[in-house]
Amino acid sequence: MGLWGCCMESKKDLTIVCFSGEFDKLLAAFTIATGAAATNRKVTMFFTFWGLNALKKADGRRALGKDLLSRAFNWLMGGRKQLPLSRFNFAGISPKLMRGMMRKNNVAQLEELMEAAHALGVRIFACEMSMHILGVRQDDLIDEVQSVVGVATFLNESENAHIIFI
Amino acid sequence: MGLWGCCMESKKDLTIVCFSGEFDKLLAAFTIATGAAATNRKVTMFFTFWGLNALKKADGRRALGKDLLSRAFNWLMGGRKQLPLSRFNFAGISPKLMRGMMRKNNVAQLEELMEAAHALGVRIFACEMSMHILGVRQDDLIDEVQSVVGVATFLNESENAHIIFI
Amino acid sequence: MGLWGCCMESKKDLTIVCFSGEFDKLLAAFTIATGAAATNRKVTMFFTFWGLNALKKADGRRALGKDLLSRAFNWLMGGRKQLPLSRFNFAGISPKLMRGMMRKNNVAQLEELMEAAHALGVRIFACEMSMHILGVRQDDLIDEVQSVVGVATFLNESENAHIIFI
Repeated sequence: MGLWGCCMESKKDLTIVCFSGEFDKLLAAFTIATGAAATNRKVTMFFTFWGLNALKKADGRRALGKDLLSRAFNWLMGGRKQLPLSRFNFAGISPKLMRGMMRKNNVAQLEELMEAAHALGVRIFACEMSMHILGVRQDDLIDEVQSVVGVATFLNESENAHIIFI
Repeated sequence: MGLWGCCMESKKDLTIVCFSGEFDKLLAAFTIATGAAATNRKVTMFFTFWGLNALKKADGRRALGKDLLSRAFNWLMGGRKQLPLSRFNFAGISPKLMRGMMRKNNVAQLEELMEAAHALGVRIFACEMSMHILGVRQDDLIDEVQSVVGVATFLNESENAHIIFI
Repeated sequence: MGLWGCCMESKKDLTIVCFSGEFDKLLAAFTIATGAAATNRKVTMFFTFWGLNALKKADGRRALGKDLLSRAFNWLMGGRKQLPLSRFNFAGISPKLMRGMMRKNNVAQLEELMEAAHALGVRIFACEMSMHILGVRQDDLIDEVQSVVGVATFLNESENAHIIFI
């Protein structure tokens, strides 16, 4: 970066760490991500721990993973269609209500936001360490996942970015 | 910004996204906000999803909103006096205990912090999209809310700011 | 900082606010902290509210604090060995399962990460205000805590840092 670089650069990059796999938090994450990408910011989303659920291929609640413990955890976590709310979840009824309210008020659904993010060039990374811990394999994840990376890559790619942990 | 601008600017702005409407998290948010504003930082608070509860006029648990679903959600969420703790809530007993402990130890209460934030010029924005989803209207919110804005405004106003998502 | 300072400085500092005392979130916090410190970033961790539990000396569930309310809260919060998961806690069974999965997959345990952080020079600060509210005394905290500080110190030390709120 040249002398003028630091003074004239226009917009900061944005990195969003998706740790919580809750429906409402993912909605916030993808709304910010698409909004930033649509206004020419370079956006990276780094999915870790429960956030990995948003990236799972499985439509139904399936027991993925290579051993019994992993399978138990993955069954519990469910996939993209079982994401709970962070509050008032009521065994999954409220996310359905919220989806209804979003439809009624013409707000983009989570799946639409995820597609928009991909179309706008938002990079989707999955966290290597949490995949190890939870027994999630790259095969279990949707094709939009660009790479499985560690914390060093996450930090290097975020050097000039806002970092938001959700 | 001139050549020297980038090298000599003093203090970064601060944007706090208040997503979680929990008592303890709002306490943290307003403590950081007032601390930053008191030391000459430009502070913006952006309230979204459950965070909107902190901005509701209603003192009691009222059913605001324009239709049945919105009213149900808004009744559940309650107002500023029903904010739960993020842990050990025990049906609302713990926030009362915590308020007692704060009083006893001479720590500023949440309402005092909110007043201080306003007096120190902290800007309060409400998120347009989550108001749509949850059926909250601007009339339902306290007068301190400066504006109802979208994600683009939030990002533009935070370009040179630390962003903290709470 | 000289003229070239701002243009040529290599890596940003990192401040992590540990608000949530949950096992999985602390794991994320210390993984990012050690990863950043290992790649020559200056890292500060600021523990507040439930995050203080990670710093408590007590190995067992003990009632610390100076009065009845504090003692009740501190007993509830437990110490480092009782940290819950943010999801699927099942009365503490899941954190044990997760520890097992981490051992099996050769992922560093939380205690190892905390030791590594200390060895790598990560600074550990405890939040003065939340210690007051929760009735936690400095004597209750492990020796690795470098200082008990307020929000002004936290902000000043984070001026040139990424701030991550976990």
